[in-house]
Parts: sequence; C-alpha cells; structure tokens
Amino acid sequence: MNEVTARRARGGGGSARRAERTAVSLETARFITRNIPNFEILNEEALQIIEWNAETVLEEIGVNFLENPAALQRWRDAGADVRGERVHIPRGLARKLCATAPSSFTQHARNPARNVEIGGRSLVLAPVYGPPFVRDHEGGRRYATMEDFRNFVKLGYMSKWLHHSGGTVCEPTDVPVNKRHLDMLHAHMTLSDKPFMGSVTEPSRAEDSVEMAKLLFGAEFVDQNTVMTSLVNINSPLTFDATMMGALEVYAAANQAAIVSPFIVGGAMAPVTVAGTLTQVLAEVLAGVAYSQLIRPGAPVIFGAFVTSIDMNSGAPTFGTPEAAHITYGAGQLARRLGLPYRSGGSFCGSKLPDAQAAYETANSLNVALMSGVNFMLHACGWLEGGLVSSYEKFIMDADQLGTLHHLAQGVAVDANGQGMDAIREVGPGGHYLGCAHTQANFKSAFWRSDLFDYKPFETWEEEGARDTEVLAAARVKKLLADYQRPALDEAVAESLSAYVARKKEAAPDAFI
Amino acid sequence: MNEVTARRARGGGGSARRAERTAVSLETARFITRNIPNFEILNEEALQIIEWNAETVLEEIGVNFLENPAALQRWRDAGADVRGERVHIPRGLARKLCATAPSSFTQHARNPARNVEIGGRSLVLAPVYGPPFVRDHEGGRRYATMEDFRNFVKLGYMSKWLHHSGGTVCEPTDVPVNKRHLDMLHAHMTLSDKPFMGSVTEPSRAEDSVEMAKLLFGAEFVDQNTVMTSLVNINSPLTFDATMMGALEVYAAANQAAIVSPFIVGGAMAPVTVAGTLTQVLAEVLAGVAYSQLIRPGAPVIFGAFVTSIDMNSGAPTFGTPEAAHITYGAGQLARRLGLPYRSGGSFCGSKLPDAQAAYETANSLNVALMSGVNFMLHACGWLEGGLVSSYEKFIMDADQLGTLHHLAQGVAVDANGQGMDAIREVGPGGHYLGCAHTQANFKSAFWRSDLFDYKPFETWEEEGARDTEVLAAARVKKLLADYQRPALDEAVAESLSAYVARKKEAAPDAFI
Repeated sequence: MNEVTARRARGGGGSARRAERTAVSLETARFITRNIPNFEILNEEALQIIEWNAETVLEEIGVNFLENPAALQRWRDAGADVRGERVHIPRGLARKLCATAPSSFTQHARNPARNVEIGGRSLVLAPVYGPPFVRDHEGGRRYATMEDFRNFVKLGYMSKWLHHSGGTVCEPTDVPVNKRHLDMLHAHMTLSDKPFMGSVTEPSRAEDSVEMAKLLFGAEFVDQNTVMTSLVNINSPLTFDATMMGALEVYAAANQAAIVSPFIVGGAMAPVTVAGTLTQVLAEVLAGVAYSQLIRPGAPVIFGAFVTSIDMNSGAPTFGTPEAAHITYGAGQLARRLGLPYRSGGSFCGSKLPDAQAAYETANSLNVALMSGVNFMLHACGWLEGGLVSSYEKFIMDADQLGTLHHLAQGVAVDANGQGMDAIREVGPGGHYLGCAHTQANFKSAFWRSDLFDYKPFETWEEEGARDTEVLAAARVKKLLADYQRPALDEAVAESLSAYVARKKEAAPDAFI
Repeated sequence: MNEVTARRARGGGGSARRAERTAVSLETARFITRNIPNFEILNEEALQIIEWNAETVLEEIGVNFLENPAALQRWRDAGADVRGERVHIPRGLARKLCATAPSSFTQHARNPARNVEIGGRSLVLAPVYGPPFVRDHEGGRRYATMEDFRNFVKLGYMSKWLHHSGGTVCEPTDVPVNKRHLDMLHAHMTLSDKPFMGSVTEPSRAEDSVEMAKLLFGAEFVDQNTVMTSLVNINSPLTFDATMMGALEVYAAANQAAIVSPFIVGGAMAPVTVAGTLTQVLAEVLAGVAYSQLIRPGAPVIFGAFVTSIDMNSGAPTFGTPEAAHITYGAGQLARRLGLPYRSGGSFCGSKLPDAQAAYETANSLNVALMSGVNFMLHACGWLEGGLVSSYEKFIMDADQLGTLHHLAQGVAVDANGQGMDAIREVGPGGHYLGCAHTQANFKSAFWRSDLFDYKPFETWEEEGARDTEVLAAARVKKLLADYQRPALDEAVAESLSAYVARKKEAAPDAFI
C-alpha cells in the first residue's frame, strides 16, 4: 500500500542494535488525503440562512467571556460592544477576524515522518480523549490509571492507521489532578513519536505543555513551528470560561494549535433542530476563533464541532444517529466556507460493551466524518459508553476500521490498469479472474483487508473457539502490548523531560480535585 | 414521525373483532424519499470511460446466452452479431433498447397503503434473500426450515422500517426443491400484506408465481400492474443462463419487474479493480435489460449490482469494504445515467455472529447504499456469514438501524422552526434547552431513537443483566413473534391460494435437488 511507509522501531547504542534484530515491524500510514468529493447536505440558501443567523446571534444575543477582564478588553479594543461579561460582536466582525487564521497548517512530530498536515483535503486520526474509566475484556470496567494511559499511548503508537497520539487517552485517576498532565505529556513524548496534544485544564498546565515541548523539539523550533494541537471546549451555549480561554491564550501566543470546539448534546446545549444547532455552533466557533486571532493573528486554529443528539425518553446522549450526521455534514460546509480546518467525528457510541450496538453507532459516525470533510478526527478509536470509558478492545477494533477510511478516500483509479480491459478480454464470458495476469499484478493492494476480523470458513472458526470480535481484539491487545518497543529518543532529551516532570511535581502539593 | 402511518392489525368476523381489541399497534414507514443529494464518486470523464468500455465489451467480447435458441434469435432479429451462443452487441444497441424500460414504477401490495415506488429518489427496503441456514441466539446455526421462513416473513411484516416482504428470506430446506416456491409465495401472500418477490429458480416456478399473484390480486389487475419484483442474477462474467433468462422472460412478458443483477465477488467474477468491475457490471446490465425489452418493451426492470470484494489471503468474500463502497457508488451513477432504478446494498457482513464485526460491516454497507442512490435494497436486514445464514437477532438489529436511513434521507429543515432562533434567544448564553418552548414543541420527532439499543445508565444496565445487543435482540424476536397477528385476507382468496398450492404439490413427485 503506497500510503504506508514501513519502518522498524529503533533504539540507541548496543541494546538498540539487539532490539533492531528482534524488532516488530511497525507501519504507520500517512495522514489521509482525500481523492473523493465531500458530501454537501446543505444547499447555498440553507448555508446563507445559517450564516446570517449566526451573525445575528453574535450581535444581538452575544457571548459570555467569564472571569476574564483581559478578554473583555481585547474585544472592546476590537470593536465589540461589551456589557458586563457579555460580548456583542457586530455583524461581520468575527468573520473578518477569523480571516488571519491559516486554512491549513503542519503539526510537527518528533519523528518528521509522522508530521501531519491539518486542513485542505487531509484527514488526521487521533484516539479517544477524556474517559475516566477503562474497560477490558478480562477486567471489565474500572477507573483508569496511569498504567492504562501508557498502554493506550503504546497501542496508538503501534496502530497502522492512527496518525496522532492524541491527548488524554484516558484520565489517569491515580495521579493527582494538578500533576497528571506532566505524566501524560511525558508518556506521549517518550512512548510514541507521533504528534500529540497539550494540556488545557489550567493555563499553567498549558504553559507546562509548551515548556516540555521546547525540551523535546528545542525552544527555537517550537517558537517557529506548531508541535501541539490542543482541545479547547466551549461551554455551550455561547459561554467561554476562563480556564479554557486561559489555555487558548497560552497556545495561541505560542503559535500552537487549538481546536475551538462547541461541546453539544442537541436539545440540551443547543436547539433541538439541526439548523438551529448549526447556527449556534457557527456563532460559537466564530467568536472563539476570532478571539484566538486577537491573541495572535495567524495562530493556527481548528473549527471544532462535537455534536450529538439526545434520547428524549431518558436524557442520555445518543451516538451514530442521523441528526448527528446532519450536523456533522453541515458544520463541515460551514468550516470550509470560513476557510478553517475542521474537527469532528469519532468512534462515538453509547453502548456499554464493544458489541454490535457500539459498532453500528461507531461505523455510522466514522463514515460521516470521512464524507463530511473532517480534517482532524479526535476520538477516532477506543470510545465507549458515551465517552465515559476508553475500551482496550474497541480501540483495536476501531483502529482497524480506520483502514477503510484510508482506502475509501483514495477514490477510483481510471487509468489503464484501473480499467482492467485486458483482464476482461483475457477471461471472457464464463471465465474466472483469480488466475489472470491483471489480478496477479494487483491483488496485494487491490482490496482493504481487516487485520482483526475473522474471514475463515465456519468450520475453522468453530474449531478455533467460535470467537467474537471482542475476544479476537482482546488477544490482539495482549500481543501488541507484549510486542511494543519504545521509539528511540536522545538520552539527554529524555533526561531533561524526566527532570522537568520531577521538579514540577515536587514544587506543589498533590491535589485531587 | 410524519412518514409513519399508524395502523392496527385487522382480521375478519367475530374473532377479528376480538383480535382488534388486543391488537398490537403496527406501524410501517412509507418507503424513503430522499431529500439529500446522492454521493457522486466518479467524475464525468471516468463515467464516460467506463461507458465506452462497457460498449466495447458488448461489441468485441460479447455475452453468452446459454441453451436458449429463442434468445439468440431475438438478438439476431434486433441486430446483434450472434456466433454460436455468443452475442456480440453493436456499440449503442443495448443502450438504445434499454430506453423503453421505465425509470420508475409502482409495485403494488395487496394492502394499497404498502405500495412502493421503485426509482427516482425513492428507496425501498426488503429483507435478506437466499440463505440455506438460520441462526438464533439459543439454537445456534442450523439448516433453515419452512417454519423459519414463516417466522422471518412475520418479523418483516412487523418491522416498522421495512417496506417489502422480500423473497427467499431463507431457504426452507425441509420442503422439496420443486415445491418450496409454492409455500414461500403462500407465506408472503397470507402472512404479510407488504409487496413481495416471485420465484426465479425455474421458468415454471415464475409462472406459478404469476398465477398465484392473479389469485391474490385478480387476473386483470396483474395484467395491468406490477405486483412482483423478482431477482434475476447474471452468471458473471458475461453469462446469461437459461434458468434465469427463462424466469426473466416469464416476468417481462407478464409486465412484472425483474432485478437484472450481476453477482460479483471482485477479483473472482470481475476484474480486481473498481473501474474494471464497473465496466463489466454495466455491460452485463445493459445486455440483460436490453433483453428484457426484447421480450416486452416497457417491462419494468431494475439495474442490479451485487458486488463485493475478496480476501486475497483466504479467497473469502469480504463485506463492508471500501472497494465495495466504490463500486456501489459508481454503479448508482451509471444506473441514473441509464435512467433505470438501481438495486444494490444490504446488511452485508462476513461475520459468523451478530457481533461487532457484523455491525461494522453492515453499517458501512447500509450507509453507502443510502448515499449511492439505491432505489431497491434487497438484504436490508438479517444477512449473516456472507449470506449463508439468516440471523434472527441480526434481522431485528439491522431492521432497527434502517430507521437511521429514513431520518438521514429527510435532510435538514431550514424553515423558521428548523432555524430555532427563538430558542437561542430564549435560552441565551449559559442556559439550558431541555425546558424551552422550541424543545417541547419538537422533541418527539426531532431525533431518531433506536427501539433496541440500550440507552440506560451503566448501573441500571448492569442490574438488568449487562445484556449485549444480541441478547436484547433475542428478547425482541420472541416478543414480536408472540405478538404477531395475521393481516386480514378475503376468505375466498385465501382458500383459492391454498387450493392452488395443494393442487400443484400433488401434481409432481418431490425433488430434493
């Protein structure tokens, strides 16, 4: 497969040479470049209505910037009408401010072969973010620990179709709240060489993220390049709190990327209708992105949209639903018209188990994300139970399915080889293609193939224990973690990172809330 | 939901009145009318290349019409170059002949509220077709019987999102091969009032299907209307056998619809590349549909494409793959350019169990079918293990998911209610939408909701037995079959159907091959 660059895990010195001889072959696909159209669900008239309404929301209703006098002053200086903590943004101002944000940017990885392009026709896949629980087939559901966190970073590093190491792949609840970001960053930086996300739970933790990135990449490099993409959620509806805005301010000032992302369960945090939700999403993103450009014009930023529907019987958020699809498609169109990279989609599901419900919901979500033109897909694998749980088995199952997106995005080749006329001539009516020259020349790359699913005849499958997908995935989790080898890292850099973490941990008492 | 027409099962006479009082409320959604665009994966140049190549295949390579001298004579008379059993069709002739086929037609059901429109922007959903085995949660996998067949017809009748009763929902292997079509038709005609398919396994069985339809609908009605849509597979590559063509001849002559459908596992029955497979599919459909119009110009016919990929390691067909998606999207474009209704898609999967693999593969396939403009989706629910098995639980799981297609196809409303500006004004920054007037007015119809999935909190779900989707579906199967009530049928009609079946069964010895 031409988008896969084969490599072997490497270490340094004698132990590395020994490792080399026994190394696990490790492939990582290049980020997806779409060679297929985006699906455009809204027509021009609908788009104009939503855009007009979003500006009305900003001007007439306004947005709250809470406990953040500096932000209010910045808005005043930019021409907004600030009353108390409410910022009324005149029609057109936010969109004008957004114009300085780049339509595409490179996020660098410490291994340059893992750099990703975010924007345009690209799609970058990152794992699940945020769950306080983990689940595995043997142990069931339990609070996540730092060991789980490291395991998920390792699994992400070894996943062929995953381009990004992500951020809070699970919440390491055994580490104090005020220190866990240090361990999490350290894990991403040392256990993987894929790009990663910074901390957003306090401005000071965003600063730690930037400092540690400087140790890893060099201070000058970080000043001049984007090496982190971090998740800045908006408190929908229309509220920007000081914590998240503080993190955004740190990252924007440091030229690091932020995903400005409404977090919406439709019917609760936004109107119960699709067009209404899209209006609010657009208003919120316009305000948030505009604010990032007030901090530093040109700072890289992503149009985010975490949106799903609600079960009106129980109040539970629901996933993989048609209404979530409508919103995801529509928000992609709005992002492209705004000239911004787009974040949405993910391995969303409400199921408690990695069962059929989980897979239907997830497959619906993943397909929509590809077709809606998403550029950065957080939660692309491992999400379970409405985001409460990072599932080991589902991580593997979803990560395998991400291969289908890579192949779908390639589109259809219609060159002479693609047309296959020689094959049709060679085989003729009633013949068989398996042995023909064209099939022999193409069979290795022609069809995507799962590395996980069972393709065996019924009898063989039954003899082997009649295993379902979860059981197959559990075996694969064990094998991957056993095979894992740490990517090489300069020893001085590794030591400086460890020293930074130790120093910062010692400097403050533990806090658990 | 405005596309759902509520009704109650009805019987005749006193027992019917008693039944009425205890009747299960039965809803069936109207067939889908798309209010969203189709996904167009091929550009104009690619389409023209494939169309040109398909004509080259027909003219230069030709197609075989086996053991069918009358067909060869018809082709000769139409201007084809017939050599032995090989028919070379001059460039443009097949397409010209196809022009008399209608772009859309009505298939009538005995309950007129169940009539379906096949073509244009419609999507009609029919259940799995053909498996010799069934599987259920308690009994596992076993050969299908006539009792299973009747059960699946009942489940199809009770499925809200299924518009069509289908055909061979499983192969009733306990009934002689030469008589089972009689029992199958009888089941569709009496246990359901949705439209159904006729038999194609012998021309005489197609004739029985027409005769029985005349008893059900009246002879005159059948002469003037389409009451059956039947599946005529092509022996890909490029071969039309006498059995299937014999059935096609019977149905076309009787103005009954046929799906002319290449049956292709890519790399085995067609080139290993997408464009090559599309070329062969188009050539085969052009020849088959043209032939139907030689039998009777104007006979209703559907552009079929059963296509999937192959696992080159094991030779097993694989489902829900990106290559199958490419072909399904492309064939839809070719069908629309030919002005024919399009059949493709289905609840395809290779898994042995209704587990996560099955659901990923199926969801991929269902989503692609919707987006590719399919008008008639056979196998829309219940398919398992590469089509070897009709699964009770998966039938229910898939049928539930078909609701997402209905809602997706509705598109996005941007009227004043859809825009929801009053709600955004009412709630404002930091508020909550659950209680607002707009939410109250819309919540019942705003979001699709599964009738099967678990949306409960973790603790409740655990207390209730931590059931996975298969277990939930098994319970629903039992409940539906227990609740089933036969739709009313005129007693004289019912007797004439039973008498026809009995007479035909007596007239011939049993045959089991």
